[in-house]
Amino acid sequence: MLSRIDLKEKLSKEEYKEKIAPLREKLRTLDGPIKAANLPVIILFEGWEGAGKGGIISRLIKNFDPRWFTMVNTLPPTMEELREPVMWRHWLTIPEAGLMTVMDRSWYQEVSTLRIKNHVDDTTNSRHMNEIKNFERGLYDNGYVIIKIFLHISKKEQKKRMEALKADSNTKWRVTGEDEEENRKYDTYYEAFDEMLTYTDTAEAPWHVVSSMNERACTYQVFKIVSESIEKALSEKEKRDAALKDGYSVINPGWYNFKPMPKLRDIKLDKTLSEEEYEKKLKKLQKKLSKLHNRIYKERIPVIIAYEGWDAAGKGGNIKRVSEALDPRGYEVLPIASPDKGEKARHFLWRFWKRLPHDGHFAIFDRTWYGRVMVERIEGFCSKADWQRAYSEINDFERQLYDWGAIVLKFWIHIDSEEQLRRFNDRAANPAKAWKLTDEDWRNREKWQQYEEAVDDMIQYTSTDFAPWNIILGNDKKYARIQTLEIICDAIEARLSSTKKRKR
Amino acid sequence: MLSRIDLKEKLSKEEYKEKIAPLREKLRTLDGPIKAANLPVIILFEGWEGAGKGGIISRLIKNFDPRWFTMVNTLPPTMEELREPVMWRHWLTIPEAGLMTVMDRSWYQEVSTLRIKNHVDDTTNSRHMNEIKNFERGLYDNGYVIIKIFLHISKKEQKKRMEALKADSNTKWRVTGEDEEENRKYDTYYEAFDEMLTYTDTAEAPWHVVSSMNERACTYQVFKIVSESIEKALSEKEKRDAALKDGYSVINPGWYNFKPMPKLRDIKLDKTLSEEEYEKKLKKLQKKLSKLHNRIYKERIPVIIAYEGWDAAGKGGNIKRVSEALDPRGYEVLPIASPDKGEKARHFLWRFWKRLPHDGHFAIFDRTWYGRVMVERIEGFCSKADWQRAYSEINDFERQLYDWGAIVLKFWIHIDSEEQLRRFNDRAANPAKAWKLTDEDWRNREKWQQYEEAVDDMIQYTSTDFAPWNIILGNDKKYARIQTLEIICDAIEARLSSTKKRKR
Repeated sequence: MLSRIDLKEKLSKEEYKEKIAPLREKLRTLDGPIKAANLPVIILFEGWEGAGKGGIISRLIKNFDPRWFTMVNTLPPTMEELREPVMWRHWLTIPEAGLMTVMDRSWYQEVSTLRIKNHVDDTTNSRHMNEIKNFERGLYDNGYVIIKIFLHISKKEQKKRMEALKADSNTKWRVTGEDEEENRKYDTYYEAFDEMLTYTDTAEAPWHVVSSMNERACTYQVFKIVSESIEKALSEKEKRDAALKDGYSVINPGWYNFKPMPKLRDIKLDKTLSEEEYEKKLKKLQKKLSKLHNRIYKERIPVIIAYEGWDAAGKGGNIKRVSEALDPRGYEVLPIASPDKGEKARHFLWRFWKRLPHDGHFAIFDRTWYGRVMVERIEGFCSKADWQRAYSEINDFERQLYDWGAIVLKFWIHIDSEEQLRRFNDRAANPAKAWKLTDEDWRNREKWQQYEEAVDDMIQYTSTDFAPWNIILGNDKKYARIQTLEIICDAIEARLSSTKKRKR
Repeated sequence: MLSRIDLKEKLSKEEYKEKIAPLREKLRTLDGPIKAANLPVIILFEGWEGAGKGGIISRLIKNFDPRWFTMVNTLPPTMEELREPVMWRHWLTIPEAGLMTVMDRSWYQEVSTLRIKNHVDDTTNSRHMNEIKNFERGLYDNGYVIIKIFLHISKKEQKKRMEALKADSNTKWRVTGEDEEENRKYDTYYEAFDEMLTYTDTAEAPWHVVSSMNERACTYQVFKIVSESIEKALSEKEKRDAALKDGYSVINPGWYNFKPMPKLRDIKLDKTLSEEEYEKKLKKLQKKLSKLHNRIYKERIPVIIAYEGWDAAGKGGNIKRVSEALDPRGYEVLPIASPDKGEKARHFLWRFWKRLPHDGHFAIFDRTWYGRVMVERIEGFCSKADWQRAYSEINDFERQLYDWGAIVLKFWIHIDSEEQLRRFNDRAANPAKAWKLTDEDWRNREKWQQYEEAVDDMIQYTSTDFAPWNIILGNDKKYARIQTLEIICDAIEARLSSTKKRKR
């Protein structure tokens, strides 16, 4: 893409004055409509060192009310951030609906300058670029506008600017050894930038490459791109919303290999364990898991356990038997309730990205991102297109966790309807347990059929080979606990003895 | 306190079995009542290296449902955390109402082991201990229960345990050079621990020092302390709530020096600026501020600017004239709306601690923590005791910011009632601005008298010598903008030329 850019474009002072005024006026009045349309906007700047990202950003945001946008300055990842999936730190920055984020560098850092500095191999780099495409696609599908601008300058111009900065004792410190390296290896960087731009130039998030050889011409271009992109998004908002929400849609699980899974009604729930067997096995497995946790910690493997199941299926007791075998400094149990204000105003996966564990740690989710295709589907908290698309969004998410090096384990604790009724009645009759039983539990019970259908879909469309569902036989709580502990220990042992190593 | 502890206490296996069973039962059934009473609980463990904090915590939390508590493992502060006030990272860990936090080390790290390792001087250390006392007092006043347990062992026992770990090749790595240093300098640490325990043993958050020479005796003691403390808090909850909410209360601004301030009604709003003067001054001041930002950044001074004012006072435009002079990578504008679920369920200052800037950065708050003594007071969103106590809580908060090294600037943008009406009508008549005017603005306007009283109180009780209010004459927007810019530049220049340096 870079070769197509005309680096000679200029704008005289007079032309600039005349052309820039109406654009400024447009940019200044966008905040109302953005707010009214509840449009989340991301404007990101990439480009060469010395191309003047800081300057153009300053000029651009002077047109915005500082309360309606957030500046994100993307630095190289910290030690903390390196312990998470690559896209983790970028997910955390996405804006709420109705607000803007202006980014000085972005998720493209990893596939351009950092790629070269850290000698990232081609396979890993393609994976990162695909993750970026998925990420942007997901944001687009969830209503976001992404405006991507790359500032281009020639090798000679870059050198000239660095020399000018170095000549002044006040600005000398701004030119680092890394900057100069970029100029020396201009061709290498050129190739990396070009590949990145070509590969990630998509219909939903196109690149705008702008020459920044001439400040006035560059400013004019950037103002034009930003105002036109936002105006277009605003004018298309209704149509797009309609297409996203109520248009023709089909279930889309994405391009993955799926494991064949049984339907819930075909699952026999007759397995039991005697108290004695249970105690013996529990002790043995907890001891084993405890030891495995040490190795997980040393090898820095993250473990993510997702619990779903019918109300009163025994998730709490099951989680307890797992967590009490773990070192308390190395796990977290995350109960997932309904999303709060800021969570509702963002992509539905944002709140789960926020809660990912460090590597070497366990995160145990009590209910999960699968709420999208169960309760949100059934209660109509999202549109049909939303939940139908969610299978692929979830599979993409779990694939990133897997590629990060995580062991992803998903448990559906299954009981039958009679057993649930028995347990509800038990709870109601026991004053110490009655607080656990709510009216909502009874209401959900009436929707058993709808839930069964949703769960069958979920299990069918999200049992990928890297993160399949495990159906736990829950009518006997003791049996269910032993079954989960065994699956967890087996999965960890298999990973420890495999050659798959964490890559970044 | 340490000298009073009997390190010889033991418990036989039989005694232990008999005594521990009923305590376990109690601990196991506490989650329901804690949830029902909406009680936030913090259990923290401090003590000698090798005293067995990890083990006792494991045994304790086995009794809890893992969904009702969070484990906090406090490590030495990261580079990131060192760029914030000392208490910042600890504030972020406080639990929601109805939940528990179990801490392996805590805010006492800074005033014990880290104090010695980092050679913190006595003055700084006393300041930190006072900050801790204020912090715990504040939590207590906002309904929290804090259970503090210190595990004590003798020098000989500590050495013995380290030797045992070192003798086994599997556990050798667990004994660090720092641990051995602690044993060598046992007396120095003893003195620091003792001072810390004595000084921070308060009625609202007392210390429990427990001998951990004998594992069974220690476990029994800890279980007993935790269950009794929670039971006591539960049984006293109603009485305490009543005392905190509706009991006798008076306005309490804390022990600070206050600047004499005028009443709003005595402020003349007749100052204006011509367009020409304004443009000239604006340009000059923005240029100056821009340069000062560079120095602020280099000297790592955080700047916190708090904007309050009448509706339509012109906060937005004022903030814009400040922010556009700043490097976009070094500031954030934080619009404060009503708190979300998780924020409402915690101490009211939590959401502001979360939003503090890094050192060297600007944080510009559009509305602030003063909502507590304005809208929350007037609309009854908190009790009378709550807002009357808030003056001192806020002054304590700002004092910590000041001690951290921050420049804290507070602006009340003042207009009179006639000017507000004029602006409301202007907005209503202008389609491009009408979305900014809400029904709530009209409702607030009807409460002008109540607000005026609240603002007068606020200005009187929170104009400390380290963070006084600045009353900005807002009837002329141009004048107001120049006035704030001047105050900001003057404050930064004064700091840069003073000898006050950031201490930690």
